[in-house]
Amino acid sequence: MILASANTDLNSYCVDLGRRARAAERALRLVSGAQKNDWLLRCARRLETQPDEILRANARDVEGARGQGLTEALIDRLRLTPERLRGASAALREIASMPDPLGRVLDSSVRPNGLQVHKVSVPLGVLFFIYESRPNVTLDAAALSVKSGNALILRGGKEALHSNVALHRILQEELLAVGLPGDAVQMVNIPERAVVSGLLAMPEFIDLVIPRGGEGLIRRVEEEARMQVLKHYRGNCHVYVDASADLEMAGRILLNAKCQRPGVCNAAESLLVHQEVAATFLPTVGALLQAKGVELRGCPRTRQYLPGIAEASEEDYAAEYLALILSVKVVDSLDEAIRHIETYGSKHTEAIVTRELEAARRFTALVDSAAVIVNASTRFNDGGELGLGAEIGISTDKFHARGPCGLLELTCYKYVVHGDGQVRT
Amino acid sequence: MILASANTDLNSYCVDLGRRARAAERALRLVSGAQKNDWLLRCARRLETQPDEILRANARDVEGARGQGLTEALIDRLRLTPERLRGASAALREIASMPDPLGRVLDSSVRPNGLQVHKVSVPLGVLFFIYESRPNVTLDAAALSVKSGNALILRGGKEALHSNVALHRILQEELLAVGLPGDAVQMVNIPERAVVSGLLAMPEFIDLVIPRGGEGLIRRVEEEARMQVLKHYRGNCHVYVDASADLEMAGRILLNAKCQRPGVCNAAESLLVHQEVAATFLPTVGALLQAKGVELRGCPRTRQYLPGIAEASEEDYAAEYLALILSVKVVDSLDEAIRHIETYGSKHTEAIVTRELEAARRFTALVDSAAVIVNASTRFNDGGELGLGAEIGISTDKFHARGPCGLLELTCYKYVVHGDGQVRT
Repeated sequence: MILASANTDLNSYCVDLGRRARAAERALRLVSGAQKNDWLLRCARRLETQPDEILRANARDVEGARGQGLTEALIDRLRLTPERLRGASAALREIASMPDPLGRVLDSSVRPNGLQVHKVSVPLGVLFFIYESRPNVTLDAAALSVKSGNALILRGGKEALHSNVALHRILQEELLAVGLPGDAVQMVNIPERAVVSGLLAMPEFIDLVIPRGGEGLIRRVEEEARMQVLKHYRGNCHVYVDASADLEMAGRILLNAKCQRPGVCNAAESLLVHQEVAATFLPTVGALLQAKGVELRGCPRTRQYLPGIAEASEEDYAAEYLALILSVKVVDSLDEAIRHIETYGSKHTEAIVTRELEAARRFTALVDSAAVIVNASTRFNDGGELGLGAEIGISTDKFHARGPCGLLELTCYKYVVHGDGQVRT
Repeated sequence: MILASANTDLNSYCVDLGRRARAAERALRLVSGAQKNDWLLRCARRLETQPDEILRANARDVEGARGQGLTEALIDRLRLTPERLRGASAALREIASMPDPLGRVLDSSVRPNGLQVHKVSVPLGVLFFIYESRPNVTLDAAALSVKSGNALILRGGKEALHSNVALHRILQEELLAVGLPGDAVQMVNIPERAVVSGLLAMPEFIDLVIPRGGEGLIRRVEEEARMQVLKHYRGNCHVYVDASADLEMAGRILLNAKCQRPGVCNAAESLLVHQEVAATFLPTVGALLQAKGVELRGCPRTRQYLPGIAEASEEDYAAEYLALILSVKVVDSLDEAIRHIETYGSKHTEAIVTRELEAARRFTALVDSAAVIVNASTRFNDGGELGLGAEIGISTDKFHARGPCGLLELTCYKYVVHGDGQVRT
């Protein structure tokens, strides 16, 4: 009986969150861009002038994480510093300075009968954002959602709870201060996993769920969600070094793609090398990678040139290591490289290094990934680097939005049609 | 054992369809727009010059439908005539004349580091189109899919099987004749429902399923599909007559929206009238509607002005009648009308009749439907009428595409990035 009652309570809790979010979404349809930018700037100022409360809350999280034996890397992700808060504040100011994503006329025409047809950008509705660790993501997600007219429900990791509560308090206080609905940004503040399941079963309240974290989290969300999911499971990104590549450039790009930040989704996980340049390229680049601590796993031909390395398995070719490991394969042709990417890739980001125009054209035409990059690092598939500004996530799906998702990707459109009495004949 | 073997066979059949579609999708990435237009024009010519085979096949379907006791209306939907084939052929020519939807640069920038970023339109992949009755839809769907670079798997209604087989033969023969992959348009030619279920469980082969038919069909597909679904369940479209409306115009729009073609999704199903004009408007328009054979069902206040009519229930307000029935409600205000639409509507198409700018602004800002129309009939929410050309369906979802879906809506995009050795620092 206690369980049933707890479930009922959880259900009412979810329904309450959902109703408030819907009401906030509706209220946001009538507010001005100036009000929302005002909110962003006020939040930025709070972070700059009153960091202490947040830093104190964050210190409690960091202490808790130590107690739970989290790795130093995870604790570092969790930690907020005055400098990191200044970065977060700068991000809010940047979002405030971006053009309003709503009300843009994406297309228009006057029909022969005089009807004026406008395709106008509008918000998506209510977003549910599920994420792990980094508390500054709370601010980015809220800023992008509200500026694009969407109500947001946040569900952060429990290890960042105190930090998130403190940040959420600022976001909500400043919403109310500028006359925006406080429920435009809500936070799930009870730890039960059942709240997530409850909300994922409520398409009447949630329009889009954005899970950001490990593949396990994302698969669970995708499994349960009865609404659209914006996601990528993995980033198994490839660098293909063509027969015509500038090999010095190829080495530079590969080292950057693999080593500059190996734990992120746009880092390279696999190297494909054209057989004609394998003998020249592999020994040199192999030594450079090994000097950086990268473990190589290769196909039999690769191992001819790099005899000390382990053999790559099928699992290696499919893996997103998120670590200093790289699978390597020698291919007979550009087309074999493309087929390999089709077989093992995750449709996230692939790069080709080539001097030949036709190779670049064929690679960009045939490779079906969110970003296809010629002669640059895979690490550039990122909202900031591609010029979209802050992003709430990267999508490898082909529906709605693909690649980094910023302000524009959190909108859809409706047709607004003006007539003066037209009827159909 | 026989069942198991039959299931295995069905499964191999689905996998074979899927593999062929994927290979065709891939081959389509390299063909020119000219080849695809050539194909469309050759198909159009075949319909014009060799209609006999199609008409004979269609006659068999019509005869079969008679034998199964289908209604005259359904038989009429099924029937092809030389005139209807000329219409279908004109539609193919129109699609051929439209701009290529692929390779458009939707956005671009040169980043400070010199990277050239292009957001380029690309096909969605493999489409699975499930539809009922009208065989000319086969041609539209194939034309739109292939022109937008997508491979298509067709699954028509069994009552139109012979017609669809004959049309599909032409489509496929002409694909091969111009050097396009014949599998770019495949047809499910065995009747088992299990094939549909099989394909809906294969996201590795199908990117988008488009069910077109009754709400039951669409809900079944949505339930089973493990990939994106482009759909609308219902079109419960409203006409709201504001206090400031030109009542003569309101009557004209309402009669058109309700009566011009009551069986389609953008026909009006519900009338909302501001209380200030109810006494003037309702008796007159009620008589006009009744003269056209429309059955009215109203709220208590409506029945004061139209005493003979039945009372509208909650079910009436939610209904998509697809017939000469109209629910009617008198509302106190514009905001009550908007709330009623939020409660009972299907997010498809709503119209307001008003002379007041502020009412039009508030209605178009707050009503969250695929098309919001000021002073014109709801019947204009249609690909042809809004200027998109032929449509493969109408979406009431907010993801990917909303409203009528034509060529552009069957594309997505990828980022193509060109550099000369850039790495991230």
